[in-house]
Amino acid sequence: MSVVAPRGFKAAGAAIGIKGGGRLDAALVVADDVAAAAAAVFTQNKAPAAPVQLSRDHLAKTGNRVRAILLTSGNANAATGIEGLAAAEALSDYVARDVGCKGSEVLLCQTGLIGIPFPLTDAVSGLHRLVPQLERSAVAGTQAATAIMTTDTFAKEVVIEADGFVVGGMAKGAAMLAPDMATMLAVLTTDAAVSSEDLGRALHAAVGPSFNSLLVDGATSTNDTVIVMSSGTAGAVDHEAFTKALSAACLKLAEDMAFDAEGATKAVRITVTGASDDASAHQGARKVANSLLVKCSLNGEDPYWGRVLSEIATAGIDMDPLTTTISYGGIAVSRSGIAADHDAAAVAAHMAERWISIEIDLGLGAGRGAILTTDLGHGYIDENRTTS
Amino acid sequence: MSVVAPRGFKAAGAAIGIKGGGRLDAALVVADDVAAAAAAVFTQNKAPAAPVQLSRDHLAKTGNRVRAILLTSGNANAATGIEGLAAAEALSDYVARDVGCKGSEVLLCQTGLIGIPFPLTDAVSGLHRLVPQLERSAVAGTQAATAIMTTDTFAKEVVIEADGFVVGGMAKGAAMLAPDMATMLAVLTTDAAVSSEDLGRALHAAVGPSFNSLLVDGATSTNDTVIVMSSGTAGAVDHEAFTKALSAACLKLAEDMAFDAEGATKAVRITVTGASDDASAHQGARKVANSLLVKCSLNGEDPYWGRVLSEIATAGIDMDPLTTTISYGGIAVSRSGIAADHDAAAVAAHMAERWISIEIDLGLGAGRGAILTTDLGHGYIDENRTTS
Repeated sequence: MSVVAPRGFKAAGAAIGIKGGGRLDAALVVADDVAAAAAAVFTQNKAPAAPVQLSRDHLAKTGNRVRAILLTSGNANAATGIEGLAAAEALSDYVARDVGCKGSEVLLCQTGLIGIPFPLTDAVSGLHRLVPQLERSAVAGTQAATAIMTTDTFAKEVVIEADGFVVGGMAKGAAMLAPDMATMLAVLTTDAAVSSEDLGRALHAAVGPSFNSLLVDGATSTNDTVIVMSSGTAGAVDHEAFTKALSAACLKLAEDMAFDAEGATKAVRITVTGASDDASAHQGARKVANSLLVKCSLNGEDPYWGRVLSEIATAGIDMDPLTTTISYGGIAVSRSGIAADHDAAAVAAHMAERWISIEIDLGLGAGRGAILTTDLGHGYIDENRTTS
Repeated sequence: MSVVAPRGFKAAGAAIGIKGGGRLDAALVVADDVAAAAAAVFTQNKAPAAPVQLSRDHLAKTGNRVRAILLTSGNANAATGIEGLAAAEALSDYVARDVGCKGSEVLLCQTGLIGIPFPLTDAVSGLHRLVPQLERSAVAGTQAATAIMTTDTFAKEVVIEADGFVVGGMAKGAAMLAPDMATMLAVLTTDAAVSSEDLGRALHAAVGPSFNSLLVDGATSTNDTVIVMSSGTAGAVDHEAFTKALSAACLKLAEDMAFDAEGATKAVRITVTGASDDASAHQGARKVANSLLVKCSLNGEDPYWGRVLSEIATAGIDMDPLTTTISYGGIAVSRSGIAADHDAAAVAAHMAERWISIEIDLGLGAGRGAILTTDLGHGYIDENRTTS
């Protein structure tokens, strides 16, 4: 059911001619009747795409109220200058007219190649097919989640049933993974009645250990966007319970992204414990996850802890090899900076799994952090060598 | 001639049984008669290898005077604990006895796999073959430069003939590129009479735009070491002239490393100008050089400037797409954040070359910086998937 699992939302997916060949390339999520309270997190990229500029502007104008979100794939509308901004405004105006709301109540998410003019004329006629298809049904939800896929191999949807309310969501792509994908987008919905301020607080807490802890190639795209909308039909809820449900939804979508990352054969969780503080633990996990050498060894199913030790020792955080333990799948392979006796067959069996876990205990304090990442293999390079 | 080009030094290379199969795996550089003034720069890795710990300790004991440098390849002697340190001390003691100097006047550089006990017993008998082979000849210099090669495809040597003095050098490997290589090592020599303090100042200036601007995979190995020794036979020289010659020698060796980086098909110079200051320019160039997406597109000879723009816009430095120009081989392909008309055939011809240049002008200030890097292709992954 994804984004339409909570009451108060409809969705649709369609082929509007951006990609061509009848491929699904546009999704619409609409709040019933009135604009919903909303919050969003955007890329920190200093060259944000036109849809990011437009959505920021619209949220400021409406005081974070959103009636509809249009998502398109096949062209990022990034590095497209004034013409790109005009195309974004035109898209949101067309949707507003069809839905029957203000232009500023529409947000826009786009993904695809950077630096190519957006084919507005090709897209406009198809765009009008979206609103008539809006439904609250599992089919419509999956159709929308499918329409934002690019090189994803499965639609990424989530439903969290909490005590008295529901959080639903859909997402595409992890980080900048392939030329026709180029970004991560996520839309979350809830029937819990939450103010836009509280949505913002909860979203900020939820993206930290999920989307912001997902590191495939270290790139922060021009288009990354996460949006949450509240219809309020389920009434007021406990803020902590809501934050917990939203966090669970975001984590599930982030795990799906790691699992389905383009060209990857492994999804990997790198956990650092025993750091002097949480920030250090996160920084250490990020350094290991960024290491091409570690990622290559994961591709080869080789538990080469020496590289993990070398990376954590150059992460710019407090660490001492003598107090450090490195484990794969819970099995310690290095203690005190040197090799530790271990069950090599058990480690080999873990390395052969699709999900691999590397645990680094620095033995210094109570700080902990985790990063989701992938291996690095031929597939990633083949996807990214050329744009053609 | 490399390290023996300046008067006052002899060198040798030999197979001492670390790698096995009669492959060259040890080099020795020795100052004639007395210990030479020296300076060194070591890895910032918090888990430094045994040879790095030993060399730091020896330099402190002697007040930066060095008679001999032993370099071995095939085993990094890193993450090897107390036994590794004992092996390092034994190696330097054996060399000291053969050369006829104090143990503390010997430095040690090692490279290879991490976390494998060093095969001291295998190496000791062969070690004694080094001193009898010491010579001041082109053959001996090249033999030494060859003995530290691992997956390098050519010996990296340099000779800079300055006004009244000479700087020579040899090096291996760029960053952590392959499992049996795992580090970069460089030894430089000069006949200019320079105090160890002045050698240190000159070396610090020289490594910035050379070895410290060489970024292949972002890894700072456990073993990285650069050492410079002065025999003084050419007498006192102007400090600026010496720094200039030493910098030229280091840059030539760094360029050789980029050109010969394991698994790379392209050597790439990324130059950022117009930044608010030099540090920002360097940080921006480093961010672009670290980008897997940019590196993949270089492998595909695809001048995908959108990724370059996206990376420089997330480098954490002052930048504005509207003032930014991106060029490949001096040909502007993007201005003001959007595509610029250009001679596509000329850009394609540049992309087909072995050396590629990407120039980013931020249009803000006078800051400039450059990074040497490589593309990312199947070869890198194949070298690094497994240690076997």
